[in-house]
Amino acid sequence: MAVQKPSTPKGTRDFGQIEMARRNYIFDTIRSVFRCFGFQQIETPAMENLSTLLGKYGEEGDKLLFRVLNSGDCFSGVDLENFRLEGDCFNSKALSLKVCEKGLRYDLTVPFARYVVQHQNDISFPFKRYQIQPVWRADRPQKGRYREFYQCDVDVIGSTSLLNELELVQMVDAVFGKLGIGVNIHINNRKLLTGFAEIAGAPDKVTDITVAIDKLDKICIEKVEEEMASKGLSANGIAVIRQILSIDGGFEAKRNAMKALFQGGSASGIVSETGLKGLDELDELFGLIDTAGVEAPVCLDLSLARGLNYYTGAIFEVKARDFEIGSICGGGRYDNLTGIFGLPGLSGVGISFGADRIYDVLSSLDLFPASLESATKLLFAVMGQEEMKYILPIASRLRQEGVAIEIYPEATKLRKQFEYAERRSIPFISINGSSEIEAGSVNIKNLSTGTQQSFPANDLPAILEFLK
Amino acid sequence: MAVQKPSTPKGTRDFGQIEMARRNYIFDTIRSVFRCFGFQQIETPAMENLSTLLGKYGEEGDKLLFRVLNSGDCFSGVDLENFRLEGDCFNSKALSLKVCEKGLRYDLTVPFARYVVQHQNDISFPFKRYQIQPVWRADRPQKGRYREFYQCDVDVIGSTSLLNELELVQMVDAVFGKLGIGVNIHINNRKLLTGFAEIAGAPDKVTDITVAIDKLDKICIEKVEEEMASKGLSANGIAVIRQILSIDGGFEAKRNAMKALFQGGSASGIVSETGLKGLDELDELFGLIDTAGVEAPVCLDLSLARGLNYYTGAIFEVKARDFEIGSICGGGRYDNLTGIFGLPGLSGVGISFGADRIYDVLSSLDLFPASLESATKLLFAVMGQEEMKYILPIASRLRQEGVAIEIYPEATKLRKQFEYAERRSIPFISINGSSEIEAGSVNIKNLSTGTQQSFPANDLPAILEFLK
Repeated sequence: MAVQKPSTPKGTRDFGQIEMARRNYIFDTIRSVFRCFGFQQIETPAMENLSTLLGKYGEEGDKLLFRVLNSGDCFSGVDLENFRLEGDCFNSKALSLKVCEKGLRYDLTVPFARYVVQHQNDISFPFKRYQIQPVWRADRPQKGRYREFYQCDVDVIGSTSLLNELELVQMVDAVFGKLGIGVNIHINNRKLLTGFAEIAGAPDKVTDITVAIDKLDKICIEKVEEEMASKGLSANGIAVIRQILSIDGGFEAKRNAMKALFQGGSASGIVSETGLKGLDELDELFGLIDTAGVEAPVCLDLSLARGLNYYTGAIFEVKARDFEIGSICGGGRYDNLTGIFGLPGLSGVGISFGADRIYDVLSSLDLFPASLESATKLLFAVMGQEEMKYILPIASRLRQEGVAIEIYPEATKLRKQFEYAERRSIPFISINGSSEIEAGSVNIKNLSTGTQQSFPANDLPAILEFLK
Repeated sequence: MAVQKPSTPKGTRDFGQIEMARRNYIFDTIRSVFRCFGFQQIETPAMENLSTLLGKYGEEGDKLLFRVLNSGDCFSGVDLENFRLEGDCFNSKALSLKVCEKGLRYDLTVPFARYVVQHQNDISFPFKRYQIQPVWRADRPQKGRYREFYQCDVDVIGSTSLLNELELVQMVDAVFGKLGIGVNIHINNRKLLTGFAEIAGAPDKVTDITVAIDKLDKICIEKVEEEMASKGLSANGIAVIRQILSIDGGFEAKRNAMKALFQGGSASGIVSETGLKGLDELDELFGLIDTAGVEAPVCLDLSLARGLNYYTGAIFEVKARDFEIGSICGGGRYDNLTGIFGLPGLSGVGISFGADRIYDVLSSLDLFPASLESATKLLFAVMGQEEMKYILPIASRLRQEGVAIEIYPEATKLRKQFEYAERRSIPFISINGSSEIEAGSVNIKNLSTGTQQSFPANDLPAILEFLK
């Protein structure tokens, strides 16, 4: 009987040893920075109750949730006929709610909000947490978009201080500095976007204006204006937005120009208190960034909008300087994340690192350390049972020093053992026969330079030096 | 509207920061040992095709699989009436196959077998991999049994050498040595169990005999004999098994006694070639263990059976010496794991570490390092905006040295900031006001000893020394 070669479900991936070494390098780097800033890791279950997840990601998001069938005889007792629309068409949405109570985590934000509310009495606020876990979305798989992927979120909740925004910027700076990726950090403030709509005379059109502006890096200003017009923004309003988007220069120039406009200096003459408040926040944040010192260029990007509606203050986006891939990290401040679960009044700010995109940048720019390829330092080739027994205590001592050692498990042809070392990128091989056993020595060869040397088996320091 | 306090699904858990620090400590320890032996990490997706999972864990296992509903309008086009048994009773099992193609991973073994078969052309055999990921089982939750829990598996596949068995024993020894848990390592060989049945004159009753013997640590020998009798084992057969189980002493004594029995010296006079082969393997393995040197006591445990039917050679079980909790690690050799996916002839051997039980042992014996509680070393208290700005560059420099630093984000009452340090187990606090700013100094207090000291802000070495 021919057995079908098995595969992973559509849109999901296996990670082999080299991919894992590279992914761990990214996560370990991020984690070490988080730790230096006092953030602590939590984990939540893969499955959440559907009542926790539904309605949090819009109608489209609800459709993309993976639902988990209740266990046991879950269809019995359900009057399936009630869900028949006509013919063999059923109301799958309603029926799935009858037979599924749980769904797979769609992001880390909603489970985090659920966590904070559930454990509020055990948490010391301000609560600084990070979380690195996979999420699942029933999206149509395509290049770079998967149905299972890792998110890497870091948030502070329970503090309105802009020091938190600063620390996120510092962490971004440190992470990409350590990874060797040159980045630009873009900052804006949701209150400015509200201000834009106000001085454009259309305070009800914040979302339309934001969505249109957000497309500026993909389409030209004329198309953006067309879109705003189609949403009913007046010609005067469009003129004000055009005025804003043409502002150029560094932070101070932009801040001063925006201040004049928010104070009534735009074509509409309208004053925006919210916009001015947003400018004050940016002023303080950029002052803190100056004081603390950040390597990466940080700019005020007036066209930065970010999709998520729950942001209420600073918004961030990080782009790689030498590789076109969109945002590799982003986030912002939200004022009411836990309100959906009945705990209002907790302000928070957070960012999320895009692990898959960071992987692609590092891979494309060849920035992964070469050492990640070779986990094992030394392979002991094996010529026979006696030789293996000779090697064992030597290998044990080297491993106790933390050196990654393999012993080839079979006494096969040396060529095969060499091939294994090569395929596994093991840099050193040791071959020991009867003459080494007699002499009590170890022979080690550096496979890249070809250098070969013999050591007394008990001269650990010399061996460790050679393996460096 | 009253909002219901949200919770996690039954049988699943959140892990808070201290639990995570402890769990990471366990996993990092295990990982570091795996790495020293040249094992490399892989990961597989949480969801597998049900065709990969079904039929691999017995009928009971199939029932415990969490199934994931197909996305979209998955009920339409399915003739639900076909699945009606009577009234509102449905054949949920058959119907679920119509609307679910995927299930959550039930263990790491089957996905590993699937991985090896799928990627066989890219793998360098012998393939030494480890995998640390959660698995899901729709078991009835109870104390110590969860619906989501981590498994931690390490296997070599593609080599029959007993060196692999040795290395697993060495890794067990190293892991529990590093964790400070005293353990006994029990070893047996499936071929001995086959031999038992053969010399008991009941070669077809291997499973019955194995299952009965396996209960020896819970019930007395008389009950075990009763069970074997009820399965149809003859009085003579039972006498042979009793003879085997009464064998006492160290490895050599047991080996010699068993050798005599397998050579025809038992009451039945039957010779067991399989049993003798098993003894040869054990002989070689114990010889290797002697040569390599292992700290933990290793014993031949003739009553060790382990449930899984796919084991064909050595079987292992590890028990904590100072805490009664059952096996905390176990495994064995299997000869045909990938055969289920059409790739026969690959022998492998592996073990699995029980993370939850190891956690319980460390916790009960108070063996977690105290340092895990305090991730952050130093909290800078904040008295006002000026003081915060004074602190920022100092904090940055300390973080660059890898010290975990927090700055309290608000200039609230000092008492509150002290409380925060205490609740978070932060060992040092630094309070700096106008006099420190004037003097260019930093004042740091050791919260456990009460010692307080001032340093010039740029004397990093002295500060680092005080924080040690």
